[in-house]
Amino acid sequence: MKVAKFGGSSVANAEQIRKVAAIIQADEDRKIVVVSAPGKRNKEDVKTTDLLIELAQYCMDGNEAKQEQWLEKVVDRYAQMVSDLGLDEATTIEIRTDLVNRIQAPYKNSHQLVDSLKASGEDNNAKLIAAYFHSIGMNASYVNPKDAGLLVSDEPGNAQVLPIAYERLHQLKEQEGIIVFPGFFGFSENGTLVTFPRGGSDITGAILAAAVNADLYENFTDVDSVYAANPTIVEDPFEIKKMTYREMRELSYAGFSVFHDEALIPAFRNGIPVCVKNTNNPKSEGTLIVAEREVFDNPVIGIAADEGFATIYVRKYLMNREVGFGRRLLEILEDSSISFEHIPTGIDDTSVIIRESQLTEDVEKQIIDRIKIELQVDDVHIERGFAMVMLVGEGMHNSIGVISRASGALSRRNVNIEMINQGSSETSLVFGIHQEDAKTAVQELYQEFFSTRVLA
Amino acid sequence: MKVAKFGGSSVANAEQIRKVAAIIQADEDRKIVVVSAPGKRNKEDVKTTDLLIELAQYCMDGNEAKQEQWLEKVVDRYAQMVSDLGLDEATTIEIRTDLVNRIQAPYKNSHQLVDSLKASGEDNNAKLIAAYFHSIGMNASYVNPKDAGLLVSDEPGNAQVLPIAYERLHQLKEQEGIIVFPGFFGFSENGTLVTFPRGGSDITGAILAAAVNADLYENFTDVDSVYAANPTIVEDPFEIKKMTYREMRELSYAGFSVFHDEALIPAFRNGIPVCVKNTNNPKSEGTLIVAEREVFDNPVIGIAADEGFATIYVRKYLMNREVGFGRRLLEILEDSSISFEHIPTGIDDTSVIIRESQLTEDVEKQIIDRIKIELQVDDVHIERGFAMVMLVGEGMHNSIGVISRASGALSRRNVNIEMINQGSSETSLVFGIHQEDAKTAVQELYQEFFSTRVLA
Repeated sequence: MKVAKFGGSSVANAEQIRKVAAIIQADEDRKIVVVSAPGKRNKEDVKTTDLLIELAQYCMDGNEAKQEQWLEKVVDRYAQMVSDLGLDEATTIEIRTDLVNRIQAPYKNSHQLVDSLKASGEDNNAKLIAAYFHSIGMNASYVNPKDAGLLVSDEPGNAQVLPIAYERLHQLKEQEGIIVFPGFFGFSENGTLVTFPRGGSDITGAILAAAVNADLYENFTDVDSVYAANPTIVEDPFEIKKMTYREMRELSYAGFSVFHDEALIPAFRNGIPVCVKNTNNPKSEGTLIVAEREVFDNPVIGIAADEGFATIYVRKYLMNREVGFGRRLLEILEDSSISFEHIPTGIDDTSVIIRESQLTEDVEKQIIDRIKIELQVDDVHIERGFAMVMLVGEGMHNSIGVISRASGALSRRNVNIEMINQGSSETSLVFGIHQEDAKTAVQELYQEFFSTRVLA
Repeated sequence: MKVAKFGGSSVANAEQIRKVAAIIQADEDRKIVVVSAPGKRNKEDVKTTDLLIELAQYCMDGNEAKQEQWLEKVVDRYAQMVSDLGLDEATTIEIRTDLVNRIQAPYKNSHQLVDSLKASGEDNNAKLIAAYFHSIGMNASYVNPKDAGLLVSDEPGNAQVLPIAYERLHQLKEQEGIIVFPGFFGFSENGTLVTFPRGGSDITGAILAAAVNADLYENFTDVDSVYAANPTIVEDPFEIKKMTYREMRELSYAGFSVFHDEALIPAFRNGIPVCVKNTNNPKSEGTLIVAEREVFDNPVIGIAADEGFATIYVRKYLMNREVGFGRRLLEILEDSSISFEHIPTGIDDTSVIIRESQLTEDVEKQIIDRIKIELQVDDVHIERGFAMVMLVGEGMHNSIGVISRASGALSRRNVNIEMINQGSSETSLVFGIHQEDAKTAVQELYQEFFSTRVLA
């Protein structure tokens, strides 16, 4: 049994939905289909989810004119598909009714309204797709996450699956025909709809794959594979045919955006292989993500870069003699809910590298003041505009020379290395550099590690 | 005015003390002479301080026979010098009486006895040297730290100078003639003798240099200069003519043993230049340690390695999402009084690098258990036998290519880099490697950075 998840662009219009149907029909093991809300049909288009978020905002503002207008925009997205797919107009009416009901329902707080409207994108799309499958003679039916038992924690926009959900969902294995399941949301134990964090439909798919112990979790998107580097930075990069969960996770972390790595955790935890495939080119092999792989010649499998990092630099004479200094510094950051990425340390100074987005003006002032007063430091200041460039590969540990080659490559292009972090993870090496050097760095590192070698 | 401090080997016998007198006579600015206890006269010899520590132990054990024997051993060291220097035997008698008094004095605890006996090594040597200076017609006198106002905190073996001491000691500036001052100890506000931590006589010298605002603090030892690498590892290494405080401090930290860097802090803080010179070759220029220096061609000024490091490796899935994880980990170590050196971090794992000596069997078990239970980690284990190799130089920051050259050098000799720490200190780069590779690493790095260049 396979679980196939289709992203927003794969279910954005009638043409795409026909491709989805063909893909499902092509392999009878594809029993569970998880769908996103209709995504962009072209570069200028707006995702249905974004329309729904705006709609929710107008509802909260009490702006009835805009509310009416945006409701129509959303309904239009589905109406167009209903018409193009030759479905009965009743489907559109049902969707409109559903949206009106969601707007008018009583909620305990505005989060519930937002979550309910956001989730309607996937929910109504699943109903529509199930109706289409049915109309072309497939034995398929929509399944509601509530009925199926997808129980989650009651954190609006940040739901975490509850262990009991897996037991309940396991029964889907026995259901006859194809299941069309909306991504992105579950229900709390008191029956409230709650959405998942970023990567929501991927999460739903991974949970279902784990619950039914699928042989494969197929993640259909709009690229042929995961690439060894960002194709907008490196021309025609290698396709990665097979990689490990760890490699995927390290690369995702550094800005590889095929999907959000944490979304796949339920699949990883249960040892279910994940395959990234292209809805628009299903013949292409895709990228298989597995627990273990053989390591060939090249120690590096991928190179990624992410921007928007800042450094909190702290200097205090004799810092290294002060037991507890590091802990107290982290405590101050923790009190402002700042999580850190790396902590390079000197004798008398230490830097904490964090994501810049966490630093509002208030937070910055607060932590600087506290560090000055409570830690009695000689200097504390914040620098922004750093990028982290990451080399990832299972073959990197014990590969004498990777650091030398990588730093040599950066040196050739005059990219100064502000920070290196190596030593804990066995599958990655991180360089901190100035943001403006990020593109050059990725290009030269790609050149160094991929120009003369065939990727594993 | 200059403060000249002479280490143990410089005052170990009559011949050395004559050299000291000649050095003082050669420069009338040398007004304050700080002396250590008599050190080793040859490789097999025992330092007076070590004899005194044993003596203190026998006193505490109540072993009167040994006590008597060790007392004679100590007195003999001075008696030999008194005789060789042609001094009056009254000096020896005075020293014996002083030691007997110290043994018989009432103490609040055994720490006080130990401190008092240890400090007698410097104290009696200062009296002896003052007597010798006087005997050859120098206008010199012994000054007692208590009378001079060297006030310190009441931490036996770990005294910290009190701010008021500087005010009191400032008056030494006005005293006529040459002052002979014993190193290694001061007095607490209630009049108890307390010794300094490691590097004790260096500390005394630095405090006096700061207090009288000396033009120069001369630290006489038995080497011509500080070298760019350990001469027992690298043949005939470059002499460092001038280096900054920061460079000295970073190198000392990584096992450069000319002196203990923290000992010089009072001088550094007051901007007083320090000169390392050789009692046995006072014509040699020595190494000047200053606040700032020009940086020439070579970004690296010295290479040091220190062994005996261990890594506490901790892995937990989704660690990076858990705000507070790092802080709680450090807290557990802090509860066992463990201080850390570096913390390389991955997404799901982190390593804490510490000095191995802190890990007794009990402590190891305790922290492993707590990390397992309190942090619910997937894996925690300790690896030992690491060395830290440090490249130091004011020219290292912004010197594109240092990392590349250094890692290339290590790669040439198949030295695997287990950890790199770079990014906070601007004057050093640290590689963690296996201990057995340390010698090779230093040699090859020296070759890389010094073989074709003239040191600044």
